[in-house]
Amino acid sequence: MSAIETLSERRCFGGVQGFHRHASTACAGPMRFAVYRPPQAERGPVPVLYFLSGLTCTEENFTVKAGAQRVAAELGLMLVVPDTSPRNTGIPGEADEEDFGAGAGFYLDATQAPWSSHFHMYTYVAEELPALVAANFPADMRRQSIFGHSMGGHGALTIALKHPQRYRSVSAFAPIVAPMRVRWGEKAFARYLGADRETWKPYDACELVARGERFPGEILIDQGTADPFLHETLRPEYFDAACREAGQPLRLRMQQGYDHSYYFIASFIEDHLRHHAQYLCARP
Amino acid sequence: MSAIETLSERRCFGGVQGFHRHASTACAGPMRFAVYRPPQAERGPVPVLYFLSGLTCTEENFTVKAGAQRVAAELGLMLVVPDTSPRNTGIPGEADEEDFGAGAGFYLDATQAPWSSHFHMYTYVAEELPALVAANFPADMRRQSIFGHSMGGHGALTIALKHPQRYRSVSAFAPIVAPMRVRWGEKAFARYLGADRETWKPYDACELVARGERFPGEILIDQGTADPFLHETLRPEYFDAACREAGQPLRLRMQQGYDHSYYFIASFIEDHLRHHAQYLCARP
Repeated sequence: MSAIETLSERRCFGGVQGFHRHASTACAGPMRFAVYRPPQAERGPVPVLYFLSGLTCTEENFTVKAGAQRVAAELGLMLVVPDTSPRNTGIPGEADEEDFGAGAGFYLDATQAPWSSHFHMYTYVAEELPALVAANFPADMRRQSIFGHSMGGHGALTIALKHPQRYRSVSAFAPIVAPMRVRWGEKAFARYLGADRETWKPYDACELVARGERFPGEILIDQGTADPFLHETLRPEYFDAACREAGQPLRLRMQQGYDHSYYFIASFIEDHLRHHAQYLCARP
Repeated sequence: MSAIETLSERRCFGGVQGFHRHASTACAGPMRFAVYRPPQAERGPVPVLYFLSGLTCTEENFTVKAGAQRVAAELGLMLVVPDTSPRNTGIPGEADEEDFGAGAGFYLDATQAPWSSHFHMYTYVAEELPALVAANFPADMRRQSIFGHSMGGHGALTIALKHPQRYRSVSAFAPIVAPMRVRWGEKAFARYLGADRETWKPYDACELVARGERFPGEILIDQGTADPFLHETLRPEYFDAACREAGQPLRLRMQQGYDHSYYFIASFIEDHLRHHAQYLCARP
């Protein structure tokens, strides 16, 4: 495991907001991430809550805009926010598209050249990042949860469904739930994973639920009704139907008039952190 | 009075976060500002709280980063956030410096060419903006307060001290309190106002208090001890001494380990909004 480099640390709500960089094995290059250590972390290990961001974001958007540190400080949760993809890999055209390449890693392990040389965000988030956090921060790794927004909601749902014993809870804001059936997902999966749609299924939350994966406890999703991506690419009704069919508990809240922005996320971030704290802070 | 153009509106904490533009008379060109209307504004006029931002900021920084809407929604406060200067005025070199020109209006009325043609942020904030708000938003103009950060703390303090009957309360994060005696202020005042330092005094909070201006009620200031500008350019001890000398009530809180960033502002924004609500929401 490589050492982490701390780029900045700032006092925030009695805790510390840090930005860090390290040499990633999974992504074969430098990766950045943000960690908020709540005040309680000075006295011992605290639960860890991962947030996966959406298209075009870095580790900074959520950290700056969501207002999560206030509630994390109250509840004693560590917030870990990775970047959304490798960057500056040298792959031609890497940063040319908003919905593919840099800023659009889709939390999968690419199998197709040239992306397969670096774009392994699934292994990064599910394996390398937790090990890095465990080795470098006062984290109680028996208590981990995960959530995300849009593409990051897709990441949180699929990773949690594949590791139901590791994550105690999962939630999402306006997630992509059926990437195989919508524009953003079809474009990205074809180029990262190739033409064989069977290889796409492990990265599709609806497919995972349909094939029998279950998450213990209720999944929480908030979705704004004024979200411009709602009807074409988010389609929460697909996940709702899949969960009903499978008996997977889901609480899907349609939030009247809210859009896809961080103004929406900030408005409901406290509900999500309290949802996770129910599971993370309950003593076994 | 010109009409305002609404650039965007988004649902946020049950209210509406808007960004607007209008043709300013004071600044002789287009100016932008942000307004948060709390849910209570749907039922009738609400108190208005102005926030003045610091060097390099636009109306967006506070709006995105401070986390103020949550508390404003609870307390029923309208938040009005102007840009920090005119922009794109055509004055050569306008945007070349971080601490002068665009993004650095210093909340004064420039008297020196070429700046005097556009840079009238004092009149803009103290006169034109309130009239614009009164005409276009559900604002109770009998209940107004003002606060700000850094250069904007300077603006809030000086404008409030000159209009103690108009603003019910004033507070600041890491304000410039003695611009005549520190680097940022001396540089800007010399070029905006000319060599005669007597003309600078109406824009210096310490000078205003020393010459007898008083603000009814306690002024609240938060200042981080790890702020890199603390010892050279903020110097809250100057204002503390001036207020003690003059009998002006001041609550100066030194916040251990906090810096000059919005992580600092976000950490204490709730305290400031509750401070203002004490004055704004008390029925006469």
